[in-house]
Amino acid sequence: MENQFNRRKFLQTSALAGASAALPNIASATSPKSKTPFRSTINIGVIGTGLRGQNHINLILKRTDCQLIAICDIDDEMLRRTKKMITEAGAKMPKIYKAGEKDYLNLVQDESVDAIIIATPWRWHTEMAVAAMQAGKYVGMEVCGGFSMDECWQLVNTHEATGTPLFFLENVCYRRDVMAILNMVRKGLFGELIHLEGGYQHDLRGVKFNDGITPYNSGAEFGEKGFSEARWRTRHSIHRNGDLYPTHGIGPVAQYCNINRGNRFLYLTSMASKARGLHNYIVDHEKGGADHPNAKIEFQLGDKVTTLIKCSNGETISLHHDTNLPRPYSLGFRVQGTKGIWMAVNKSLHLEGTSPAHRWEDAQTYLDQYDHAYWKAGANKATGAGHGGMDYFLMDDFINCAKEKVAPPFDVYDAATWLAITPLSEQSIAMGGQPMPFPDFTRGRWMHRKNTFAL
Amino acid sequence: MENQFNRRKFLQTSALAGASAALPNIASATSPKSKTPFRSTINIGVIGTGLRGQNHINLILKRTDCQLIAICDIDDEMLRRTKKMITEAGAKMPKIYKAGEKDYLNLVQDESVDAIIIATPWRWHTEMAVAAMQAGKYVGMEVCGGFSMDECWQLVNTHEATGTPLFFLENVCYRRDVMAILNMVRKGLFGELIHLEGGYQHDLRGVKFNDGITPYNSGAEFGEKGFSEARWRTRHSIHRNGDLYPTHGIGPVAQYCNINRGNRFLYLTSMASKARGLHNYIVDHEKGGADHPNAKIEFQLGDKVTTLIKCSNGETISLHHDTNLPRPYSLGFRVQGTKGIWMAVNKSLHLEGTSPAHRWEDAQTYLDQYDHAYWKAGANKATGAGHGGMDYFLMDDFINCAKEKVAPPFDVYDAATWLAITPLSEQSIAMGGQPMPFPDFTRGRWMHRKNTFAL
Repeated sequence: MENQFNRRKFLQTSALAGASAALPNIASATSPKSKTPFRSTINIGVIGTGLRGQNHINLILKRTDCQLIAICDIDDEMLRRTKKMITEAGAKMPKIYKAGEKDYLNLVQDESVDAIIIATPWRWHTEMAVAAMQAGKYVGMEVCGGFSMDECWQLVNTHEATGTPLFFLENVCYRRDVMAILNMVRKGLFGELIHLEGGYQHDLRGVKFNDGITPYNSGAEFGEKGFSEARWRTRHSIHRNGDLYPTHGIGPVAQYCNINRGNRFLYLTSMASKARGLHNYIVDHEKGGADHPNAKIEFQLGDKVTTLIKCSNGETISLHHDTNLPRPYSLGFRVQGTKGIWMAVNKSLHLEGTSPAHRWEDAQTYLDQYDHAYWKAGANKATGAGHGGMDYFLMDDFINCAKEKVAPPFDVYDAATWLAITPLSEQSIAMGGQPMPFPDFTRGRWMHRKNTFAL
Repeated sequence: MENQFNRRKFLQTSALAGASAALPNIASATSPKSKTPFRSTINIGVIGTGLRGQNHINLILKRTDCQLIAICDIDDEMLRRTKKMITEAGAKMPKIYKAGEKDYLNLVQDESVDAIIIATPWRWHTEMAVAAMQAGKYVGMEVCGGFSMDECWQLVNTHEATGTPLFFLENVCYRRDVMAILNMVRKGLFGELIHLEGGYQHDLRGVKFNDGITPYNSGAEFGEKGFSEARWRTRHSIHRNGDLYPTHGIGPVAQYCNINRGNRFLYLTSMASKARGLHNYIVDHEKGGADHPNAKIEFQLGDKVTTLIKCSNGETISLHHDTNLPRPYSLGFRVQGTKGIWMAVNKSLHLEGTSPAHRWEDAQTYLDQYDHAYWKAGANKATGAGHGGMDYFLMDDFINCAKEKVAPPFDVYDAATWLAITPLSEQSIAMGGQPMPFPDFTRGRWMHRKNTFAL
């Protein structure tokens, strides 16, 4: 506790210093068309070299407009894998920060680093992003759910004190079908939007538990005995009950209905089912069983958490969180307006006046027709990048924004708003479904801000 | 107001008399296996001869184990159509009650009537069911949403005072895929149920408005200028905001998770989107337009209403109500348990250990394999009956239960519970998403009651 207090005190003290140092070099995060000179190449530091960080590093190593000059981790195995990847790519070995949990503070002070990507376990995201913003670095922060409303405000307040942009690295906004539908939404093909759905419906049982050596489907261990995400992510399912991972669903939906840009979230209610899936997984696993120590754990996370969000412009949003049961992967998108509806799960849409009355049409014809310019131009480059190629476009946008020092499409206000879903959902569930209001993190700026994503 | 008061007073006064008259002939509604003698044929009265009532009458006329001996309506056109149908079937003309809105009270007193079907506009259901129960008739009440919690209690209290069964006529419980999935649920193929979805997602714009002559897609009129459902149903969309029609979704879901039979609804929260669809429909209709008087109406019903329900056994339920936008018909069922998931919208399911990991399978193979005995035996007879044949099985169950005078599969407690969703949803929406508790209409009986549907 004392360390945490000191750490926070340090942040508060250094905020103004950071702001004055950083402001001259950083364009206003609210002006997307900056006059700041274009930089042809930038130096990147990556904090967190786990599997997700390695993904980003892999994309960075392939580019000619950026150099990986610093990495930071405390996990020797992940550092070993990362160094191997760098060597195999023939790239220069970056400076390595591995001297304990706080060594990232030295990385963010490295004057040669222009931009920082944070891909650590969730618990570190805000603390590291705050430090990086205070050091004047262009920040790319991986997605997660928040822990507290205070944490969300810390991000906003640090950004406003320093002027440093934060790019919230939500990759699903770049998914090919998601972007094609964004095109269709913007062309008015669905009319005025009325109801949207999305979420994270992904059987993560084989991620939350493994054998401590291989990451997926290999055992019934977690925590110190687990590997990769099982080492830290699983504890959230033991102790917390809420929508722990809202951004893959809410990110695309927020683009469709311009959240924090003429629209905002007013309140949510959340409801959780009972928790059975993780316990059953341990008991039924060949390396687990009813007598396995983990079979005694009482998991708090409801297997299915459903959250309803009301927007100031009158739309409703249904968010799914469903990671503990056997099921096919599906983010479950639904975009419904006055003129039509798209549903991802049946790969179908209906557009009034175009589709046969009361009938679904295969969505693919439309997805091809309205393929986004990003994908039309870059599909070849995206081949092989993570998550079906969308990670390429995310990294491309991040690097380009960082080079230009312009406001990112998903900024600190979006990060705060999307992160807030998690503590608000936990609170609503704990209070028997009470509605929980969203703060206006933008302090009224949402009324005149414009959506700049992938225009 | 005075008439209403007198009416209620009459009901209260006659309740005890009705009870003592009726009880000797009516088996206890909580004992499905009655010793009451089987009757080979019964006499039926139908109150409400609109399109839905005609549907029921059509099925009655085809049967040899019941006679239509009384009908009641105040709409001359609907009576004309009904009489024509009866004549064409070569059946004996029933006694006709048409002397004003209260003439149904004479029908329910008709000693030759054994069972009564109520298929009037929603506003009359409870009042008529209460009168019919008090007269000792076996009651079949069409589905709708409730108006008040008091109305739900009236049904329960009247049943308990009279001992008269009430069969809540929810037809979707008999849908072929719904019943096959019920078989699979009962065989444990989905494991322990965790989360369920259902609802009423049906573009009713062409039902809520017509030309006053033909029922569907023919104009922009309603109320006195409308025909069939447009005459009365549309007003609910003008004045009310909630899940106005919950039973087609909740009926099947309640069978899956044994509501009022070892499980019960604890509370709900509800959220409504803005209302655009009905206004746009009037403005865009060739017989409407921006200057049409109906274009001035401000509709209260949100185009998409989403309701979350928490069950005492820990399941969550998502209910959809979506009747004002262009969309294909879909009740949107989802049945998700510890061992698998079925979704109606993509006609797919996933069963752990059977389906390929993380992959959907076409549900049809399973729906065929687990086809319910009702459908295996009766599919031929169901051909041509309403709503894909399911109405045949509903009527068959109703007549059989009435002949045996046994408790129906969906009884007065289910009716009260399902009806209550509507006022609770309206209240939750009006209160900004506040959770609303369900009363225990069974007064604790849900803890030992058993599901008897289609065993």
